[in-house]
Amino acid sequence: MLKIDIIGTGNVGTHLCRAFADKADVVAVSSRLLSGLRHDSDIYLISVTDDAIRQVAHNIAGRIPSSAILAHTSGTTPMDALDGCAAKTGVFYPLQTFSKNVGLRYDEIPFFIEGSDPETASLLKSAASAVSVTVREMDSQNRQDLHIASVFSCNFINHLWALAAEYLADKGIDFNLLHPLIRETVNKIGRVAPYDAQTGPAVRHDTLTIDRHLEKLGDDSELSGVYRLLTDSIMNHHPREASGGDKTIQ
Amino acid sequence: MLKIDIIGTGNVGTHLCRAFADKADVVAVSSRLLSGLRHDSDIYLISVTDDAIRQVAHNIAGRIPSSAILAHTSGTTPMDALDGCAAKTGVFYPLQTFSKNVGLRYDEIPFFIEGSDPETASLLKSAASAVSVTVREMDSQNRQDLHIASVFSCNFINHLWALAAEYLADKGIDFNLLHPLIRETVNKIGRVAPYDAQTGPAVRHDTLTIDRHLEKLGDDSELSGVYRLLTDSIMNHHPREASGGDKTIQ
Repeated sequence: MLKIDIIGTGNVGTHLCRAFADKADVVAVSSRLLSGLRHDSDIYLISVTDDAIRQVAHNIAGRIPSSAILAHTSGTTPMDALDGCAAKTGVFYPLQTFSKNVGLRYDEIPFFIEGSDPETASLLKSAASAVSVTVREMDSQNRQDLHIASVFSCNFINHLWALAAEYLADKGIDFNLLHPLIRETVNKIGRVAPYDAQTGPAVRHDTLTIDRHLEKLGDDSELSGVYRLLTDSIMNHHPREASGGDKTIQ
Repeated sequence: MLKIDIIGTGNVGTHLCRAFADKADVVAVSSRLLSGLRHDSDIYLISVTDDAIRQVAHNIAGRIPSSAILAHTSGTTPMDALDGCAAKTGVFYPLQTFSKNVGLRYDEIPFFIEGSDPETASLLKSAASAVSVTVREMDSQNRQDLHIASVFSCNFINHLWALAAEYLADKGIDFNLLHPLIRETVNKIGRVAPYDAQTGPAVRHDTLTIDRHLEKLGDDSELSGVYRLLTDSIMNHHPREASGGDKTIQ
């Protein structure tokens, strides 16, 4: 059974410990104390904020066996941030949104692996495969592309919901009324590409509705700014000539 | 059984005809020809683009019984757009994203009703209740608020997915790899408020990651613009002092 030390007890580290609980011999190690660090593990996973990875890696260097793999779990930090800290380095990136108190199905989380040599990549892939059905090798450049896309696809959309919820709360309207709409919006992209699933006033170039909305949002410069930018972007991507008859909106 | 004429054969009209198929005596009428319009129906639902509602209402006026209700299905058009076209007017707004070729569970769609008098509102509510379990009265102002929130919560998020898919396609990466992340992002808001579910570099004020992303997006002014605006908005809504320890991100 693989021995894995997970350094960092934030959301990602906590979930990785749970994911490996019955798949590997795993321990959680505080990134500040490093007191629980074992001296004979196969893999050391650094799961801390991006700006702390280098420092933690340097603190660990020399305290792990020369045969061990030192890897981090970041989407955006390149693998070479670990250079000089171990002979075998890698990346072990689970693409998911983690909150400590929200349970997850780990087998559905895609893992993206990088290794400083083929053998290292192979061992990290087999570790990830113990947890998930989707494991891929990906270099640091493409992993960063994926991370950027995940910011658009997860973090930004969640914030748009937060803005909508705040706007509705101010009017005494329950945000939960939007849940069926949101669920269906997500259901659609499982069946058609998001570009083809676009609905709404912008894709219809319905300037009457857009002007009414902007008039209503007039006092709120933040919401107006977001509304204008995303409406213009939709219009640019869906020129009027290309708008099909099958694009309607509520 | 209620007799309902649905004027307009776009996405919404088409789906309303299906929704009422075995709940009412329903016909679909082309908004241009009006040739199938019946002379003895209880409800006439105008389901056309917002800028065509007034014209269609005027074309119908005088061709329907004085006891009938004339209503539209728009989120943003006020009820008074129908003034002068019938004695009884109303709004029958289904809050959902409709595409002709994508099936829906109609009983989950919230309907928002308005009537020019209590009896009219009551009849429209009973018609909606034949289809859906969620039927509410809502005035034109609040319905417009809800429509604006739905643009943020559905149309804009779908466009962010389209932008992410386009960005990844350009790098040869499959957008479908993000589906588990997107599904979990939606699952979370069923359990916690979107504000509390926020993850990502912006809520952590992780300027190292943000700068790396912006550097990578540098050539693309559209994506950079959206990234900057939404990142600033998240930071404004989550000042550093208030960022809890349970906010981490991949």
